[in-house]
Amino acid sequence: MEHKPVRDQVRHVRLHGPGPSDVSDSVLEALSSRTIGHLDPDFLRIMDQTQEMLRQVFQTKNRMTIPISGTGSSGMESLVANLVEPGDRVLVVRNGVFGGRIADEISRFGGEAVDINVEWGKTVELDQVKQALSGAGCQGLFLVHAETSTGALQPHMKEIGQLVHEHDALFLADVVTSLGGTEVKVDEWGIDAAYSGTQKCLSVPPGLSPITLNDRAMEKVRSRRTPVESWYFDLTMIEHYWSEGGARKYHHTAPVNMIFALHEGLRLILEEGLDAVFARHKRNAAALQAGLEELGFTYIVGKPEQRLPMLHAVFLPEGAEEGKLRKRLRSECNLEVGGGLGDFAGKAWRVGLMGHSCREEKVHALLRDIRSVLESEPEGSGP
Amino acid sequence: MEHKPVRDQVRHVRLHGPGPSDVSDSVLEALSSRTIGHLDPDFLRIMDQTQEMLRQVFQTKNRMTIPISGTGSSGMESLVANLVEPGDRVLVVRNGVFGGRIADEISRFGGEAVDINVEWGKTVELDQVKQALSGAGCQGLFLVHAETSTGALQPHMKEIGQLVHEHDALFLADVVTSLGGTEVKVDEWGIDAAYSGTQKCLSVPPGLSPITLNDRAMEKVRSRRTPVESWYFDLTMIEHYWSEGGARKYHHTAPVNMIFALHEGLRLILEEGLDAVFARHKRNAAALQAGLEELGFTYIVGKPEQRLPMLHAVFLPEGAEEGKLRKRLRSECNLEVGGGLGDFAGKAWRVGLMGHSCREEKVHALLRDIRSVLESEPEGSGP
Repeated sequence: MEHKPVRDQVRHVRLHGPGPSDVSDSVLEALSSRTIGHLDPDFLRIMDQTQEMLRQVFQTKNRMTIPISGTGSSGMESLVANLVEPGDRVLVVRNGVFGGRIADEISRFGGEAVDINVEWGKTVELDQVKQALSGAGCQGLFLVHAETSTGALQPHMKEIGQLVHEHDALFLADVVTSLGGTEVKVDEWGIDAAYSGTQKCLSVPPGLSPITLNDRAMEKVRSRRTPVESWYFDLTMIEHYWSEGGARKYHHTAPVNMIFALHEGLRLILEEGLDAVFARHKRNAAALQAGLEELGFTYIVGKPEQRLPMLHAVFLPEGAEEGKLRKRLRSECNLEVGGGLGDFAGKAWRVGLMGHSCREEKVHALLRDIRSVLESEPEGSGP
Repeated sequence: MEHKPVRDQVRHVRLHGPGPSDVSDSVLEALSSRTIGHLDPDFLRIMDQTQEMLRQVFQTKNRMTIPISGTGSSGMESLVANLVEPGDRVLVVRNGVFGGRIADEISRFGGEAVDINVEWGKTVELDQVKQALSGAGCQGLFLVHAETSTGALQPHMKEIGQLVHEHDALFLADVVTSLGGTEVKVDEWGIDAAYSGTQKCLSVPPGLSPITLNDRAMEKVRSRRTPVESWYFDLTMIEHYWSEGGARKYHHTAPVNMIFALHEGLRLILEEGLDAVFARHKRNAAALQAGLEELGFTYIVGKPEQRLPMLHAVFLPEGAEEGKLRKRLRSECNLEVGGGLGDFAGKAWRVGLMGHSCREEKVHALLRDIRSVLESEPEGSGP
């Protein structure tokens, strides 16, 4: 059987789930630039510029700031594979799905994850961090800055960084959902290593995972007692391929076109300016929140200041049928929102306003469509 | 400093190195289709069709036939991470760069690589395989079907498969460069697991690694004594995401647009027909060989029947300056060819005719450009 081309099979859906987000025309144009060699001088220049722009978005001077050649989870695995050695103990804040995944990663690489359990929808308190650090004798603390499963934004990042460093441990952060949508100050907050994804607020298709590690973290990688239990993610080799101006040593064939797209996504964000981008997310988040609350939705995260601007995790109004309504949004309105995870499955939605999806007119259209499925019967169900 | 968009920085280069190869307009168009959700029904259909087409190209019925979300090396790592357990012994044919990398991978995952050393440019003989198998007590044998560093094509695949199975071991193959350019008969040859890349004869940008594992191999994965030392590449989880028709379980966010591109690349190959594609590679390879030999190039691989049709690894004519000429091809002719690796660095070129780059008119243009740099002085060097 012959299949039709993608263009004849895929309809245009507005992306307001937990990612991917809408991709702009200019990023799609960059993505489809003619492929060139991964060692071509033109491509090496694009790599250099991509690193330089990633540093601006991460708000860091870290030399080791690169996109890993895989989706967001590959950035998580890169950090764990390189930074966790057999026998290492790492504190993990578990207040959603992704803390659990980090703990799984740590144990696969021979480390021990020591949980700091926090109710889903809440964030970790400084006292809890202090207590956990004093008890454990750990090499690091991992937390998720913006929990995509609950919509919670972790406050006190700088203070947590200080506490972690007082105990001579590494501060490791998942900034997958926050990067490019709200402040992520890697250097100022004392984050030693962080990873992100391209398909959230950077509004680039999924496929790359930007990471950043400071010298302290890279020192731990370079002084490992055992080789990294991964060739693909071994940063001691990858750093010689992503080596600005220096003698590059081939590692693997970079995903050339995806890096073109990331280059353009970063360029657009910096052209608009980080502050303007964050303000836009805040402004549209407020409008969406007002609209959702008017329709009877309530937020999983109780504290308003701890709600993510780019991802609204909300319980549906009393009596609303989650799965059915979400399917209708997709089929009747060409609109994607995300379902709840874990205990929130079947009860909550995750509504994204990420990057290019975060525009005033899109908020209006989104609210209009949600209202329409809430207040009407399914198409074709009439008499 | 603001950077210019990719389109203003990257010139069009014809790709005749060891990959990436030229990407057709229709694959670039599919690549830049509007991104949709990784769980959208339209995307799930594209995933199913991609698996089905990959099976045709691998010539297999293996259910577990999927693209891994990373570049070619990630497919190698997936196979090793899943199939090699601590203490396993695996025979590795080393007749080029990539056999060495496989051995490195095996030792990182706690296995022991037992080398079968073969001179670079040659392939392994059946007697060597027989002898190695009888001595070692190994769980598997790994070889590279088409060695990109030397241009050698491994013959006797079916016979090797039989020998390996007589010793109750797994037959594992790197088909990165061969897939889609010459016969790769996974089922008929008894290959238990294989991996490839998109940027060679499939003529899709780098970023995905198609793999296939039969039930015997998946049985070994499922009955591991220890968890896979990788979350990102854990096939026991990934198989539930790439689960045709069944209940899919989210693992990681698939690289949506890259899979669109792979879908189109496979569609084009199957539309032309595998036999026609292989015949085209053979025909153009003969023309290129005649032209290169006329210009004084000689092949690294002595036996003509063991030369890759899609990658010509050749010593330069006496006195020709490798690096200088290759740079001139790039700067004066917008043409990329690859340099030699290992002992062949500075002495050899690797000239690719892969997938969409393998066209009669491109062979003519390629030979014309090579002749022009061989027979003329560099531009701007005149009086």
